[in-house]
Amino acid sequence: MCTNVAIIGGSMTKFGQRDAWIRELLAEAGEKCLRDAGVPPSTIDHVYISNMASGEFEGRTGVMNALAHDLGLLPAYSQRIDQTSASGGAGMYGAWQSIASGASEMTLLVGGEKMTHTDTATSTDVIASITHPDEYKHGATLPSFAGLTARTYLDRFDAARESLAKVAVKNHANGVDNPKAQFRKRIDVETVLESPIIADPLRLYDFCPVSDGSAALLFCPESVAKEYTDEYAVVSGISGATDTHVVHERADPTTMRAVEAAGSNAFRMADLTPDDIDVAELHDMFTILELLQMEALDFAETGTAWKHIEDGRTQRGGELPINTSGGLKSKGHPLGASGIAQGYEIYEQLLGKAGARQVTAETGLTCNLGGFGNCATAAIMEAK
Amino acid sequence: MCTNVAIIGGSMTKFGQRDAWIRELLAEAGEKCLRDAGVPPSTIDHVYISNMASGEFEGRTGVMNALAHDLGLLPAYSQRIDQTSASGGAGMYGAWQSIASGASEMTLLVGGEKMTHTDTATSTDVIASITHPDEYKHGATLPSFAGLTARTYLDRFDAARESLAKVAVKNHANGVDNPKAQFRKRIDVETVLESPIIADPLRLYDFCPVSDGSAALLFCPESVAKEYTDEYAVVSGISGATDTHVVHERADPTTMRAVEAAGSNAFRMADLTPDDIDVAELHDMFTILELLQMEALDFAETGTAWKHIEDGRTQRGGELPINTSGGLKSKGHPLGASGIAQGYEIYEQLLGKAGARQVTAETGLTCNLGGFGNCATAAIMEAK
Repeated sequence: MCTNVAIIGGSMTKFGQRDAWIRELLAEAGEKCLRDAGVPPSTIDHVYISNMASGEFEGRTGVMNALAHDLGLLPAYSQRIDQTSASGGAGMYGAWQSIASGASEMTLLVGGEKMTHTDTATSTDVIASITHPDEYKHGATLPSFAGLTARTYLDRFDAARESLAKVAVKNHANGVDNPKAQFRKRIDVETVLESPIIADPLRLYDFCPVSDGSAALLFCPESVAKEYTDEYAVVSGISGATDTHVVHERADPTTMRAVEAAGSNAFRMADLTPDDIDVAELHDMFTILELLQMEALDFAETGTAWKHIEDGRTQRGGELPINTSGGLKSKGHPLGASGIAQGYEIYEQLLGKAGARQVTAETGLTCNLGGFGNCATAAIMEAK
Repeated sequence: MCTNVAIIGGSMTKFGQRDAWIRELLAEAGEKCLRDAGVPPSTIDHVYISNMASGEFEGRTGVMNALAHDLGLLPAYSQRIDQTSASGGAGMYGAWQSIASGASEMTLLVGGEKMTHTDTATSTDVIASITHPDEYKHGATLPSFAGLTARTYLDRFDAARESLAKVAVKNHANGVDNPKAQFRKRIDVETVLESPIIADPLRLYDFCPVSDGSAALLFCPESVAKEYTDEYAVVSGISGATDTHVVHERADPTTMRAVEAAGSNAFRMADLTPDDIDVAELHDMFTILELLQMEALDFAETGTAWKHIEDGRTQRGGELPINTSGGLKSKGHPLGASGIAQGYEIYEQLLGKAGARQVTAETGLTCNLGGFGNCATAAIMEAK
């Protein structure tokens, strides 16, 4: 790259069931991000939106042009980036590229999704259309992949079912302290284990909710960042990778190859190792995924991540706090927003702005998944 | 930027009514592009797709992951870029950024759309959803904006209605020599002027068709290009910009501000002027748009582009041939493919591979529009 890429602002809306359309949600996070950073709209060169399906969910396209218009950013260049549920992470990679290439000196990234107004059949169909049609027609949706994978993991590594429940318990506990989280409700292991079965062995509380919301981050060269603030984060490593589109073609269902590739590329670029990471936001759309990502990112040896849940290493007081924001599990998962909201949590942690959720952190990592790990993005951020 | 960005391969499928779904169309162009360039799939770092609406038109999302899988590109990073009908141009800008930033050393860009299987109500609704809902509910679709703008242009500049028809006549004549064009049929001014009225004063033959198809380009640093070939093109200028999302808020309906901004940025970056351009592909979705883009790009003074159509300057034998490919008008307009197919035509012209359509050209330009000029991208390419 030509230049170090900094993040000098961030925001997110309240996640949950929102009485606002996608255009309003994007404008809310984008406007707040600019205002908090003290950056006037006229300085924005590029505005990128991360969004999977405004057309399918709401019958609206062209929302990136609407956002540029609504925030008074004209003639800033706008585009939409889609990488299904990893659209936010893909947006971070795209925004990084826009700055690192010299194409832009100030890029506003806003991601969002409006989903709660749709009926279950519609949202299931849209989300299932991410996967291969030959798998979907046999009933293999994302939750069913999660169930099959969880069963394989528990059997192969003789892991405790309770450890999956404890991922949800931990993330809900964190969400209690996040005013923007969809659920601010403490749960216990019994809450999970006594909830309805969705895809055996996984139950309702192993899954993230359907959500509305948006989040934003503001990217610029580090040299420009210093004109606006003394406190910013730098993106020192960022990458993305794919795994098979047909999930059953994977040699090992418990190995997330896209996460492995994206993570190792990001660590190499940042010249850091997993031991250097102080805090991480992982894509806990299903509890099992938090364990698989810990192993694919080398935060834990293969087959051992569940033990780290048991011993409290990933709790807020632990050595490697994971999903201090509450994660997708309790914060919510408006698809296009999630990867950016992960970046926003790390940004807040690095700058000491995380309030009751604050941990000690100089370096953080985000990992965002598309499909059932069909694509993954990873970003490493450092405080400056 | 860190590095000069080269294009070392390109392809397009036959445009028109195709018995193939989006996934197959993307794979067809992508596979041909790699094969023709002699670049093995294992070298691809990033694969980007330009596509506006696979979900809306076909109920399929995640097509970028499907493409990475189908072409054997794993673990290459994949994403979709959408900028409505400028998705192809946005894809070129994204692919350029991926190389110029150092994120990728080989990026395959494939754009496509599958549209002809939809009924008119569906395709009209999807395309109209690009624009502002308050305009659409009053019947202001893209064709009606074109009609209103054409009337304003003809009246204000005392231009000949026949000059709009001659844009279509010229582009159809070029399409006859393009084996991939949807229509390979010579027409005359009477064909246009006697065709049914669509949006007065514009008639059926002032409009591009609904199309299926895809196109691809292969991007890498110039230093890498030299390992594969002696003949390549360099992207010396590239940019994008937005205009108001609400069309009626524009101060002057015949001035395309997004084109002006994208074009002037691209010329500045390439250190070239409009006089240096030997051949151009403009977004002639409607005949009037070719004239407005000529003026916004300073190929003609305001209010005079129609005279250049009359005097033959933009014909194949003229000083500045425009739309040698046949343009969107006769080649077809599968939304996500069009900007890339423009780039492919310029690539072929610069490398002397354009067959019966060949003109003398060292430097070419593409201009791709989203919505009714709500967004525009411009790219300048030079032969090496």
